[in-house]
Amino acid sequence: MEQGLIESFKSIVGSEYAITDQALIAPYLFENRRLFHGKSPLLLRPSSTKEVSLIMHLASQTCTPIVPQGGNTGLVGAQLPDDSGHSVILSMERLNKIRSLDLKDNFAIVEAGVILKTLQKKADKMNRFFPLSLASEESCQIGGNLSSNAGGTGGLAYGNMRDLCLGLEVVLPDGRILDDLRFVKKDNSGYNLKDLFIGAEGTLGVITAAVLKLFPKPKGKEVALVGLDSPAKVVELLSLAQCHGGTLLTGFELMGKLSFQMALNYKMCSRSPFDREHEWYVLINMSSSRSDNDALSALHIVLEMALKNSIIDDAVVAQSLKQQDFFWQLRESISPAQKLAGGSIKHDIAVPIASISDFITEAALIVEEIIPGAQVVCFGHVGDGNLHYNITQPVGADTAAFLKLWPKINHRIHCLAIQYHGTFSAEHGIGQLKREELRTFKSSVSLEIMQEIKKIFDPLGIMNPGKIL
Amino acid sequence: MEQGLIESFKSIVGSEYAITDQALIAPYLFENRRLFHGKSPLLLRPSSTKEVSLIMHLASQTCTPIVPQGGNTGLVGAQLPDDSGHSVILSMERLNKIRSLDLKDNFAIVEAGVILKTLQKKADKMNRFFPLSLASEESCQIGGNLSSNAGGTGGLAYGNMRDLCLGLEVVLPDGRILDDLRFVKKDNSGYNLKDLFIGAEGTLGVITAAVLKLFPKPKGKEVALVGLDSPAKVVELLSLAQCHGGTLLTGFELMGKLSFQMALNYKMCSRSPFDREHEWYVLINMSSSRSDNDALSALHIVLEMALKNSIIDDAVVAQSLKQQDFFWQLRESISPAQKLAGGSIKHDIAVPIASISDFITEAALIVEEIIPGAQVVCFGHVGDGNLHYNITQPVGADTAAFLKLWPKINHRIHCLAIQYHGTFSAEHGIGQLKREELRTFKSSVSLEIMQEIKKIFDPLGIMNPGKIL
Repeated sequence: MEQGLIESFKSIVGSEYAITDQALIAPYLFENRRLFHGKSPLLLRPSSTKEVSLIMHLASQTCTPIVPQGGNTGLVGAQLPDDSGHSVILSMERLNKIRSLDLKDNFAIVEAGVILKTLQKKADKMNRFFPLSLASEESCQIGGNLSSNAGGTGGLAYGNMRDLCLGLEVVLPDGRILDDLRFVKKDNSGYNLKDLFIGAEGTLGVITAAVLKLFPKPKGKEVALVGLDSPAKVVELLSLAQCHGGTLLTGFELMGKLSFQMALNYKMCSRSPFDREHEWYVLINMSSSRSDNDALSALHIVLEMALKNSIIDDAVVAQSLKQQDFFWQLRESISPAQKLAGGSIKHDIAVPIASISDFITEAALIVEEIIPGAQVVCFGHVGDGNLHYNITQPVGADTAAFLKLWPKINHRIHCLAIQYHGTFSAEHGIGQLKREELRTFKSSVSLEIMQEIKKIFDPLGIMNPGKIL
Repeated sequence: MEQGLIESFKSIVGSEYAITDQALIAPYLFENRRLFHGKSPLLLRPSSTKEVSLIMHLASQTCTPIVPQGGNTGLVGAQLPDDSGHSVILSMERLNKIRSLDLKDNFAIVEAGVILKTLQKKADKMNRFFPLSLASEESCQIGGNLSSNAGGTGGLAYGNMRDLCLGLEVVLPDGRILDDLRFVKKDNSGYNLKDLFIGAEGTLGVITAAVLKLFPKPKGKEVALVGLDSPAKVVELLSLAQCHGGTLLTGFELMGKLSFQMALNYKMCSRSPFDREHEWYVLINMSSSRSDNDALSALHIVLEMALKNSIIDDAVVAQSLKQQDFFWQLRESISPAQKLAGGSIKHDIAVPIASISDFITEAALIVEEIIPGAQVVCFGHVGDGNLHYNITQPVGADTAAFLKLWPKINHRIHCLAIQYHGTFSAEHGIGQLKREELRTFKSSVSLEIMQEIKKIFDPLGIMNPGKIL
């Protein structure tokens, strides 16, 4: 990159926030799984929408590729530059203000660089609740959550990030600012532009701020862990919990035996909460906006009926907030725990609930066929039909050789999900990882429209190139 | 229109369903309010997606404008042809199959021409609930509900039509079929195309079918009417109901004194449920997915606290299903009742809840300034901030002269809503009626993007021309 251009970018954000020192840029060039690694001559850290707008204007004038980056926790490589060394990284971390909180209408105007946990805490302090919750919530940012339409454990009751967003502020690839920060829930005035940017992984523009819904803080929360013997029983339990828990059911997470055991080990927990091992575990979360007793009684009704009808084998209701936290920590520990067990091939599929049991049976056959001895680590947001159907290398196997099978096994598992009218990408997005799969599984009509939409916003192809399309 | 072209269209749908007799076409040329009236040489009534595709292909080959029409209940003229006499009307009424119902995953695949009430009833029979509910539900169609992103009384708890739709099947203006009938709740695979078509009022393509969410049928429903003395108290009551009713609050409808009186008269009800008149009335709906007692106890808690804190003056809880229906009928009767009172100028605004009281006060001053003696008929989905702030002509005034003030008063009221960060079109859409307002109130960036999106799908401008943009 020419020094003159670097100086022009510097003059927008100030020298201090235009970084060319490769040692300082390094952490922005790879992600936690080390699947993706890129190069960049320049890292920009703007502090305002105006600065982002000037950056994009200059980028469009000079055909400079720009890669927006939030908390760098994305799992498909959407936040990383490619290997060309031509892309500028646009870190959103200094756009980190919660501009306002409205407690009457229950919304917050939040900049893209605000860390999810910061918003959760701020809402909590105001007796409100922001329901998006992910394993990476201590470091992921709102802009990334929006750009990936993040899901997580709250999706069952509150929907994905798309459902939590009323309006957006976006800087377009040519520097124009789209101010669509709507405050009202209902607004039928022209085409829905907001939902194009949400989930577009930074390929159509840079989200700089959003109006996000807040909810009344639940007055009671109860958590239970249950043990069951089959996915079919898991689906029966979900149906029972929805029938008798109704809108109180705010979490329903599946953990296979191996996932659960790995999580226990990771948390250095010498004793399981259960007397014996089960094939499957479900974490049930019930919250009431009315009273704690309300949540507890709903939970008890569901568990009693499930025991009586032999749907579950055992259940443990958390007896303290500490134990509730611990149960949730077990669930959130699966990914880091799995990392310690060697190479891991990941999936982020969703299938209709009615097909979950068949999917799990057939997927296991595919795994065993391709990689005999591989260990299935199946867990996820089963209440939404969304499973992280992951595969850990066989004990003692060669990690590199195992990981070479990633595309092959991905493809077979994705085909299976599609066969059940599901998806190969439920919540993590496409990024660099699943571009080929997108081309394989999407209809040509969908792909053509997506290409044309991309061209409207980014005719020069400078906006996060090489992602999604 | 050339006879040869008419014959070509006929050969697609069959002679019986290609109508050129103007007497038979007439009902498709105007709507209930008689604000809009158009001309058309040909009405097509296809029965399948394939036929719609062939029609659009021929239309694009011959540059023939096509106006899709559902139940013809839209309030902004989006479903009507213009006066040129060049547009073909595409009635969706024969695409009226509920293709399937999935009771495990709770969704239905529904064709565009299915009448909303038909879907509601079918769901009910299956012990499920489809929550979209509007005054026109006996005749409006799913395709129109989607194209207008319909709201209605269920929006508070269940969202608009957009929130109820998982996937779409759309015929594009060139005849290509976009099959995006997704079955899973979570699917982050590329740009969100579905939400472009929802609310696009048939200007980007023809929605032919949709996957719609179903919900467990509520086990209990309770309805109350309350009397209050100010909009500020209404907002206090909403806050109380949300706090103590939580997710059980499924309806919160406002009726001003005049609206309520008109509705009572319309229903030929000699006696109000209340001993005396109140300035404002709210209809509260509480539903529980768990038990009837659950809904009733939540309602009682809210009403008792509201009485104790002097938020409300009186409350009547419906004592039977029949009385529940009657309370709801009062609410739904306001529009037809208002029609009998002479000319009426309508608004469909939304403002943040916190601004409702100020909005109502200031709007009344504007009305009195422009049309002294005009009667404000204010009602609507106040739980969403959405008010139908309508104005009935002064008693004895000249209707035509009064209606001439429509654009002037609209503009002032819309400016007020925008000043409060609200919208001039909450749920009815833009159609022909609010095109000028769209140009006035939307940012140039938004308008430019909308124009470019329109061009992608409909470069020839044949798809419902003259609507929205």
